[in-house]
Amino acid sequence: MHFKAIEAHLKQNGRLPVNIRIILEGEEEVGSANLDNFVKGHKDDLKADVVVISDSPMFDRGVPSICYGLRGLVYFQIDLRGTKSDLHSGSFGGAVANPAMVLANVLAQMKDRGGRIKIPGFYDDVRPLRDEEREQWKRLPFNEKRYAKELGAPRLFGESGYSTLERVWARPTFEVNGILGGFTGEGAKTVIPAVAMAKVSMRLVPNQDPDKIAKLFEDYVKKVAPKTVELKVTRMHGGKPWMTDFDNKYVQAAGRAIEKGFGQKPVFNREGGSIPVVATFQEILGLPSVLFGVGLPDENAHAPNEKLDLGNFHGGVIASAFLYDEIARG
Amino acid sequence: MHFKAIEAHLKQNGRLPVNIRIILEGEEEVGSANLDNFVKGHKDDLKADVVVISDSPMFDRGVPSICYGLRGLVYFQIDLRGTKSDLHSGSFGGAVANPAMVLANVLAQMKDRGGRIKIPGFYDDVRPLRDEEREQWKRLPFNEKRYAKELGAPRLFGESGYSTLERVWARPTFEVNGILGGFTGEGAKTVIPAVAMAKVSMRLVPNQDPDKIAKLFEDYVKKVAPKTVELKVTRMHGGKPWMTDFDNKYVQAAGRAIEKGFGQKPVFNREGGSIPVVATFQEILGLPSVLFGVGLPDENAHAPNEKLDLGNFHGGVIASAFLYDEIARG
Repeated sequence: MHFKAIEAHLKQNGRLPVNIRIILEGEEEVGSANLDNFVKGHKDDLKADVVVISDSPMFDRGVPSICYGLRGLVYFQIDLRGTKSDLHSGSFGGAVANPAMVLANVLAQMKDRGGRIKIPGFYDDVRPLRDEEREQWKRLPFNEKRYAKELGAPRLFGESGYSTLERVWARPTFEVNGILGGFTGEGAKTVIPAVAMAKVSMRLVPNQDPDKIAKLFEDYVKKVAPKTVELKVTRMHGGKPWMTDFDNKYVQAAGRAIEKGFGQKPVFNREGGSIPVVATFQEILGLPSVLFGVGLPDENAHAPNEKLDLGNFHGGVIASAFLYDEIARG
Repeated sequence: MHFKAIEAHLKQNGRLPVNIRIILEGEEEVGSANLDNFVKGHKDDLKADVVVISDSPMFDRGVPSICYGLRGLVYFQIDLRGTKSDLHSGSFGGAVANPAMVLANVLAQMKDRGGRIKIPGFYDDVRPLRDEEREQWKRLPFNEKRYAKELGAPRLFGESGYSTLERVWARPTFEVNGILGGFTGEGAKTVIPAVAMAKVSMRLVPNQDPDKIAKLFEDYVKKVAPKTVELKVTRMHGGKPWMTDFDNKYVQAAGRAIEKGFGQKPVFNREGGSIPVVATFQEILGLPSVLFGVGLPDENAHAPNEKLDLGNFHGGVIASAFLYDEIARG
């Protein structure tokens, strides 16, 4: 999209209205393990006024949007061992703790019935939703029934006291991403598993700090897991949440560019996913970011048959070309 | 073992002291799906005074034993579906119920902190332990610390108010035999699983009825599972618990035979596993059973490197040969 916009400027004007440096990051989906060091090592080459990232979705088909907030992430693997090998559930059932049962108990203690996370201190640094954000989001064309139907969910569920958009954009989560233990093939096998494992992650919102939350989580798991099993908690990748004000001048420039590319004013929203490089540029280079993406929510990001609407691609090319002008204008 | 004993009688005496009919069952480990019909169809061929089954273990090396009680079993698979496909935990985390979390919650509601099963009515038909059983078992050479160490368990765990032997022999259990959902490979993947599955089973004791317990379990799961997921509960194989009095004349005959084969009086114990055919013979043919086995608990039943001590095999051959005489004597 940006390459096409650059090409258009060069063809039309023979020059660009601003200097542009391009970073191509191929590790974003696996935690950008090397980007921080690269950015730290190339501070001078990367001097700039603003970072433009086109990795956020439009709110909906025909509803172009500018994203001003992202959630962060901490990800863990929990491993429990009960015995040195699987046991016959007849000969040994009743004598030892079952690590799959213990794991279920540990996970069940992560949230209360209202969907609120029970890790002590977890919500301490959560920036409350502003009234104007809630008001704006209420006006967005979002139908909970249609949304549930598209996902194939019998009904929606989340933290009580918040709408679905508020839950996804502005509230932290705790999810089990994977769980495994014992016999999982066809049929029945009467074993007590020796081990059980869960992968769990928390989406974080401003101003939660992944390191602080990771510590709170580890302490809590150690507290709620019984001494009848061996417990191992392994921290995996993560990223900080991010947010800018939507009256920031670059965000406003992006808004005008989107209007020229798509023929209508964008909505200002947040996004439930994580783009950890946004925090990297903020911290290491002190640069603000503008999230300027044109993907649609139903285009199967990270899934089979991932795709991009060509009309939005063309609108995005035009909007990108105008964006450089709008940024140059200041 | 029995074939050798029969051979010895025929060689020594030219005849057997009792008539013997032999049933070889190859489906016992997968629920004996066809045995009931076979037995029903051959009632006349199978007329007898007592059934002898050599599928129960000795209490320990050097401690021959007669088993007079077995646990039964009901086995289920629980399938939960949250959405039609896995979802990105950033874009959708907070909006929908996570079936792996729901599964953990459902499983966590099966037992209280004292290890007691919370399914309403579950214990209604459990025959209480008799004082003389508890007294006898207390005198058995059983070391909880050594037992835990052999299993590699950090510590033992079970229903409060009962010793380990009592829990395994005379109390029912609820176990997770397998659990699976979401991403379980190496590394981290931020999905909300579409589905989650658990295989669970309950060991039953006299006088619990598998059909009645199955109904109680199904009702309870349906009650505790929320409407945010689709629930499917599938009943798999099972078997009735069984128990005879240890002053039964055939059990006493077996005790004398064991003493002659092993040079010492046997202990009378129960066993935590299930041998559903025992209930089959009881119900369809009205026959008592004598459990007359010589396997050791550490011989890896149902596991790699399964084995049998040759000394116990030889003792078992001699005891079997004497058993026929003792039964003939009445």
